[in-house]
Order: sequence, then C-alpha cells, then structure tokens
Amino acid sequence: MISIGIDLGGTNIAVGVVEETGHIIGRAVRPTGAQRPCEQVIFDMAQTVRDAVENAGKDVRDIHSIGCGVPGIYDEESGMVLFCTNLGWRDVPLRSEMAKYFNASFYCDNDATVAALAEAKAGKSVNVRSSVLLTLGTGIGAGIVLDGKVFSGSHGVAGEFGHFMYCAGGELCTCGKRGCFERYASATALIRIGCEAALRHRESVLRDLTPNQMNARAVVDAARAGDAAGVEAFDEYTTHLSNGIVTVIDFLDPEMILLGGGVSAAGDFLLDPVRAKVERNKFYTSRPHAAIELAALGNDAGIIGAAMLGRQ
Amino acid sequence: MISIGIDLGGTNIAVGVVEETGHIIGRAVRPTGAQRPCEQVIFDMAQTVRDAVENAGKDVRDIHSIGCGVPGIYDEESGMVLFCTNLGWRDVPLRSEMAKYFNASFYCDNDATVAALAEAKAGKSVNVRSSVLLTLGTGIGAGIVLDGKVFSGSHGVAGEFGHFMYCAGGELCTCGKRGCFERYASATALIRIGCEAALRHRESVLRDLTPNQMNARAVVDAARAGDAAGVEAFDEYTTHLSNGIVTVIDFLDPEMILLGGGVSAAGDFLLDPVRAKVERNKFYTSRPHAAIELAALGNDAGIIGAAMLGRQ
Repeated sequence: MISIGIDLGGTNIAVGVVEETGHIIGRAVRPTGAQRPCEQVIFDMAQTVRDAVENAGKDVRDIHSIGCGVPGIYDEESGMVLFCTNLGWRDVPLRSEMAKYFNASFYCDNDATVAALAEAKAGKSVNVRSSVLLTLGTGIGAGIVLDGKVFSGSHGVAGEFGHFMYCAGGELCTCGKRGCFERYASATALIRIGCEAALRHRESVLRDLTPNQMNARAVVDAARAGDAAGVEAFDEYTTHLSNGIVTVIDFLDPEMILLGGGVSAAGDFLLDPVRAKVERNKFYTSRPHAAIELAALGNDAGIIGAAMLGRQ
Repeated sequence: MISIGIDLGGTNIAVGVVEETGHIIGRAVRPTGAQRPCEQVIFDMAQTVRDAVENAGKDVRDIHSIGCGVPGIYDEESGMVLFCTNLGWRDVPLRSEMAKYFNASFYCDNDATVAALAEAKAGKSVNVRSSVLLTLGTGIGAGIVLDGKVFSGSHGVAGEFGHFMYCAGGELCTCGKRGCFERYASATALIRIGCEAALRHRESVLRDLTPNQMNARAVVDAARAGDAAGVEAFDEYTTHLSNGIVTVIDFLDPEMILLGGGVSAAGDFLLDPVRAKVERNKFYTSRPHAAIELAALGNDAGIIGAAMLGRQ
C-alpha cells in the first residue's frame, strides 16, 4: 500500500508517491491554474495523482491514503477547505470531490503544518517530542507537532504565528492589522528592512538593485560581503526573528524549533546570530531551551508531510 | 484518602484538604516569612499541612498526595524549585525536604498552571478539552491545560505569556526586556495607563488619588462612572488585553480562555469589550474561536489545583 502526498500551491499541484520512510518513489506536477473553477483544479489534482502513481510503477488500487497540504485552513469535520487565499477558495468540499476519483481515505491540513509533520516523521525533528516549524517566505507559516501528531487547536487555526501581535501599532499587514510578526521576520520583511537600510548607506551595493532585483538573498549576500546596509539590515532582521522565537518558547516551550522557507537558505549565517540572540533574550536565562535548527526536507516537505497525514 | 493542596505565595502559605470534587474540607494558613532560610519555610509548610488535616478531622496517614503551586518553576525530574523570585528561591530541593515530613507522593508546578488545572477539574473549564488561564495581577501568569493535563512544555517553561514580545521596543519590563505583554495588560499596566490618562484629563477623579491610593479597581470604577480618563484608560487596556488574547488564539487556538486575577473582578464590564474586540481583530474572521470567560474559583484555585496535580 502506498500513500499519496499532494502539495497544492498557488502555482503548481505537486504530487508524490511516498513510502513509510518518507522516501518519494514517484512524482508528477501540473500548473494549478488557480483562476479556474475549483472543480477543474480538483480534476487536475486527480490526474496528477494518477501520473505520479504511474511514474512510481504502481496502481491506483494500491493507494492507502491521500493527503493534501493547502495554503489555508481545512475543516476535518466537514471535509471542506474553508479558506485558501492564494487559490481564492472558500468552503470548497475537497474531500467529497476527491472521493469522486479515488476510493481511499483523504486527509488535509495547512501546508506549514504538513511540512512540520514531514520534518517530525522523516526530517530534522525525528524522535523529537514537540517541534515548531517556522517557514520564512512571503509571509510566515508555522506548524506545531506534539507527540508525533499535528496540533491544530480546537478550531483548526493554531500555529498562526505570522500574525501574532509583535509590535502593537507598527507596520501595516496584508491581513489589515498592524504589527504582525510576519511584517518583521518574513522574507518580505527582510527586503523592506534592506531597502530602508540602503537609503541610509550611500555606498551600499543594494542601491544598485531595482525593486524587481531586490530579494531576501540579495540582502543576505550583501550582509555576507560586509556591505554596511546589508549587515545592518540582517542584524535588525535576526533580532526580530529571534524575538519571535523567544515568544514561541514563552508560549509552547517546544523541544525543537525549525526554520524553513526562503530565508533559511542562508544556513548557518542565519542560525548563528539567531541562536545567540535567543540565548541572550530568553526569559529563563539559565534554563535550557529549544534547539534551533534548519528544516531538512526543503520543497519536498509539503508532499512528504501530506502523505504522512494518513500515518499519524 | 485525601489530597493536600499548598498555595505557596510570597506572603502566605495557604493549605487545603481537597476532595476529588474540588471541595475543600479543611484549611490552614501561616505567613510565609520568605526572608528566612528555605528549610524553615518548608518546615512551616509541613506544620500548615498538619493543621489543615486536623481542621478537616483527618489523619496525616490518610494523605494520598501533596501538591504545591509556586510562583516560579519546578523541575519534575530533580524535584527542585528552580526559580521563585518572590521567595528568593533558587534550586530548592522541595520534594526531598517535604519527604522528611510526609510519606506521600509530592507534586509541584507553577501557580498559574495549577490554577488553570483547578478550573479544568472543578471550575469554569470542566469538560473543556483545551484551556488557557490568564491571571491579570501584578504581572500576568498563565496556565495551559490540554486534554485535562497541564501542559508545561519540554523544559517546564511553556505558558510564559506575560513576557511575550507584544510591542517591540516598548515599555521597559521588570525582566529587563522591552515591550512584554504584561507591561500592557496586567493590573500594574492598567494603573500606568490610568495615570497617563489622568494627566490628559484635568477633570478626572483619578487626579484626586495619591500613588498609594491608585489601583486597578479605581481605574475600573472611574470608567464605570463615565470619567473621561477612566473610560479612555480602560478602553486602551481592553484593546491591549484583547490583542494578547488574539495572540493566544493564533498560537494555541484553545477551546476556552479564562481571565482571573485582580482585574477580572471587573466581571462583565471587562468581558464585554474584550469579547467584542477579539471578535473584531481575530485573524480568521468567520471562524469560531475560544469562549472567553471569567475564572470561577478565585483565590481557592491555587489550593484546589495543587491538590489536583496528583489526580491528573
């Protein structure tokens, strides 16, 4: 029996046939075409699953379970995707639609939650009792795993760390509130902070970039190269990120905190200052705290974690 | 068999003999005398337990378990109170010291955590799967109960909501950091906000109070009476508190959030605006969220919850 993992994104539908170990033995991908009616997107999801199963040399009758990660919220009880901003979905009956194509149990959860599960089952946080994954991308996604199971709270909305109030009255967020954490610690925030620093440093290499060329990696590279604006911006960024990590510790005190998403590509250059600042700013100064590590599975975490939903 | 609950505070040692229902059938209290060596305080704790047992008409040989709530952190593995600021305790071997006096199993946890357990076992959150108690006093304490058990995290420090970064770079906190939540939503914060509002409103009744007379209740009473400074201060306070409650929902999405401590004495006058602001500011606007209620057990929560530690 095989498990299917679907990573449903705003751009692509990525599907993998996943073994119990987390190994992907067959893949397929198709554009999401998010502007189409949801029934057509789901039809293509089913086609992509069939392609992946064929690529793995298996038969659809071997499918034990299908899991799906969505950039939004899924309601287990009704089997509906309640919100999915990137896809423009609202109250989409994903489970019953998928049941039209496959006679297998279906699971679904938020994409960051699913990625956290992947790390706990087959990535960096294997054998760790409690872990939190923060994905540092356009926004900040987060997933919580307690005792090997995803923790979604009482109404399916736990782990919405990107929007905790970090700086009351601060930067305006896409959600309409001010001061949300992701305005200070996402890749988007690093770009904003980098632009602001560049305005203060006439000699910065960041001043040679058009807005289209400006990205998180450019700021990281500038910081690595000792560019004054880059160094200043990255220092401010890691301060915000470590403050948020201290808040995760204050709330949940997990055994491990994983960093994933675009900014985490900076590797130890990110980890070293973040670890030092968390150590310095944590509340219980002499108590041990969560290990802070880089997520290990990269882009495959969405597929692997989705497949693992049926194996919790 | 009876359970003993000890509420060890900076001022008093309060002990109760507690039935399984949470009913207290005997009590005793003694001053803590926190400036003394910890062995003497623990000796008096044992005396107070004996008094309470006698007052309940029971025998010390009937004691099944002894639980203790401390304003600090206890390490289950070593049996030590690691920190307890009010008592000046650090690495105090409370379990082995208590074992000199009683042949009963001993449990201990943070006082706010213990109060949250009391509410879950015998108070407002009975039969609720997940709850968070916020105590709005000098600082902000918090306790998390998941599936009927206290959740203390991987290193015993979960639920330190008073110090989550709420306003980066903001008010200086007693912990040395800036912008901690309790600087904005504790009783102490309500007093500060009230004083600031009084300076802006020449006609305010709050201007007739000396610093010694100024307290959270005075600000609440002024707000109730329509005093402009009181109304403004209480509105600002409930905005901060509701923002923090939204953050609790963003992180943990519990089924119920309870408000206890001094400020909660304002009752519905506090609850009504807080509920309305949470409803307005929560991230998933159309999803249901935690019920927000007043804690029911008041000062007895510490004793009852401590006794319940042995019954989890």
